[in-house]
Amino acid sequence: MGKILVLYYSKDGSTKKMAEYIADGVAQIPAIDIRIKSVGEATRDDVIWCDGIAVGSPTYLGTVAAPMKKFWEDMLPDWQKIDGKIGCAFSSQGGWGGGAELTCQALMTIMINFGFLVFGVPDYSGHQFTTHYGATQAGEPRADKEIESCRRLGKRLAEWVAVYVDGRTDLHPLNGLYKRNPWDK
Amino acid sequence: MGKILVLYYSKDGSTKKMAEYIADGVAQIPAIDIRIKSVGEATRDDVIWCDGIAVGSPTYLGTVAAPMKKFWEDMLPDWQKIDGKIGCAFSSQGGWGGGAELTCQALMTIMINFGFLVFGVPDYSGHQFTTHYGATQAGEPRADKEIESCRRLGKRLAEWVAVYVDGRTDLHPLNGLYKRNPWDK
Amino acid sequence: MGKILVLYYSKDGSTKKMAEYIADGVAQIPAIDIRIKSVGEATRDDVIWCDGIAVGSPTYLGTVAAPMKKFWEDMLPDWQKIDGKIGCAFSSQGGWGGGAELTCQALMTIMINFGFLVFGVPDYSGHQFTTHYGATQAGEPRADKEIESCRRLGKRLAEWVAVYVDGRTDLHPLNGLYKRNPWDK
Amino acid sequence: MGKILVLYYSKDGSTKKMAEYIADGVAQIPAIDIRIKSVGEATRDDVIWCDGIAVGSPTYLGTVAAPMKKFWEDMLPDWQKIDGKIGCAFSSQGGWGGGAELTCQALMTIMINFGFLVFGVPDYSGHQFTTHYGATQAGEPRADKEIESCRRLGKRLAEWVAVYVDGRTDLHPLNGLYKRNPWDK
Repeated sequence: MGKILVLYYSKDGSTKKMAEYIADGVAQIPAIDIRIKSVGEATRDDVIWCDGIAVGSPTYLGTVAAPMKKFWEDMLPDWQKIDGKIGCAFSSQGGWGGGAELTCQALMTIMINFGFLVFGVPDYSGHQFTTHYGATQAGEPRADKEIESCRRLGKRLAEWVAVYVDGRTDLHPLNGLYKRNPWDK
Repeated sequence: MGKILVLYYSKDGSTKKMAEYIADGVAQIPAIDIRIKSVGEATRDDVIWCDGIAVGSPTYLGTVAAPMKKFWEDMLPDWQKIDGKIGCAFSSQGGWGGGAELTCQALMTIMINFGFLVFGVPDYSGHQFTTHYGATQAGEPRADKEIESCRRLGKRLAEWVAVYVDGRTDLHPLNGLYKRNPWDK
Repeated sequence: MGKILVLYYSKDGSTKKMAEYIADGVAQIPAIDIRIKSVGEATRDDVIWCDGIAVGSPTYLGTVAAPMKKFWEDMLPDWQKIDGKIGCAFSSQGGWGGGAELTCQALMTIMINFGFLVFGVPDYSGHQFTTHYGATQAGEPRADKEIESCRRLGKRLAEWVAVYVDGRTDLHPLNGLYKRNPWDK
Repeated sequence: MGKILVLYYSKDGSTKKMAEYIADGVAQIPAIDIRIKSVGEATRDDVIWCDGIAVGSPTYLGTVAAPMKKFWEDMLPDWQKIDGKIGCAFSSQGGWGGGAELTCQALMTIMINFGFLVFGVPDYSGHQFTTHYGATQAGEPRADKEIESCRRLGKRLAEWVAVYVDGRTDLHPLNGLYKRNPWDK
């Protein structure tokens, strides 16, 4: 049974809201165990425990917030115990064009350093809205396509863990279990 | 009299539309000479000519479109003739979260390679809308804040050229000639 | 039996040399089928065929060479047929500090757009030499640690394909089959 | 008289060593005032004071160390007082390929957020050694080309401040006052 950690840092609640929708998406795949924890709550054991991880930080100055960065610097001594997990990123920014893509990329860089396999979601969750490098948002998700972007990221994470860790190959996106874009037939 | 080139590649017209609004913004600063050219129209002499440059490409796969990349690869033999220009970036993507920030960053990386000084605009052009690493857009700009984002980028480029190349220090943003954000008093 | 494509673009031969060492590394893992092809030789069928892929480009202006970028732009219509592969990157630059890390990151961004899971190698292949975001090189690999960096990337790619696609979980790096760093005991 | 701040965070002394060589390079340009300070020593007034800034952090997990990130997050309330400075980056990493380029890029992203104009140095400081996106190092600089890379970055920063802030246009690199690459005639 695949194990997924949704780890976030949030100050004003926007990134936390994203984390909750991502956990909703994880829950759409059966037989996955979920933990959702903030940087203050999560321990090294939570990270060692999981097979897949979604990491979220608000965008501060176009990159990861210092407390989330510090969390991973503190994990460094354990890196040989956490190699090979499957990871993805999410971030809330002050405005569109405000760096959430860059923050997702920085979060993926951190995960790549630990040996994780990282991914985004090619799907569009609505008109002119994507999750290509992780879920990005201005403020908190409100519109359906914004909420679906978070859910889709969590669902895809759960699918990859199911496919690659648990061997449930029927859940691979190439099997076409659902539409990837609103305009797909 | 400062000289500015707005250089773009556009296939469906969205990035071209951004280029036009950026040129509008440049024109808000007096005594600046402007050229606006596509990759097919611009020559090496246009690049050597200018003091400041705004470079725009659609986002294809999270980075610069191949024809724009090729343009700059072809400029490489001339690099010692074009050092020290002031540059900025813009990009149209298929959807929000679709990589336009990453493309702007890649365009700035290319310019940094040529010795350019690159910048973004910290200002917000409207509610939850910024130009921090260049102007980004999903499709073409339509809303006021989207159009203003392009204009503000062009205006700031013209200001930096005026301040740093032409010595018109009164145009420096720190002199507070206009509001940077909608909520500023 | 896992299938791996080593895909490269090379003008002066340095990136091709890296590709060959990477293929050597792939061959260290039994029962993996390998193809090594340049951008001119590879077809869309090669990409669709493989489970894992190593993509290499020289660093031009801090990012991917235009011909490699064009290759992937041409693959776009097929994206729903190639989702979920396991990918990694390599690049040869003119000098250290010359952008090969940025190019590897751009190559990974391209792969993430197609839905691939991308990774680097946390291991050190020798004194002050790593493969954290893919194999990077100034010119062509000559020193042992430089050659081993390429080989280790290919080997790790083959391991991930074996573990995640073929279910050979004994090959997971956490099982400690070999030393990750020269100073490990 | 141009004012330059060399700001660094250093734990094992490698990034501090780089900062000292960068300050050496700044001192090669006459009539520039220099301060060199660690994150613990520098105040907001030092940042407001300077016209140009070189910012250095060790590479931790492919990006900026948390204490340096926190320094800039704490500067956020002052952003409208520090717009338009000229900035560059430097970083020491554990090994080549270890993320120092990515860290320099992240430091430049932070500076771009504050409205700074950022640059790298196209020059080669020796065989296969560049400073394209800032000065990068594995451990501390020891070889001549490594030390010269740091000095060249500081010198160029001082040149840009002299040219753009102080109007000493004779110092512009296009005036060819010195060789940019070892192989230039």
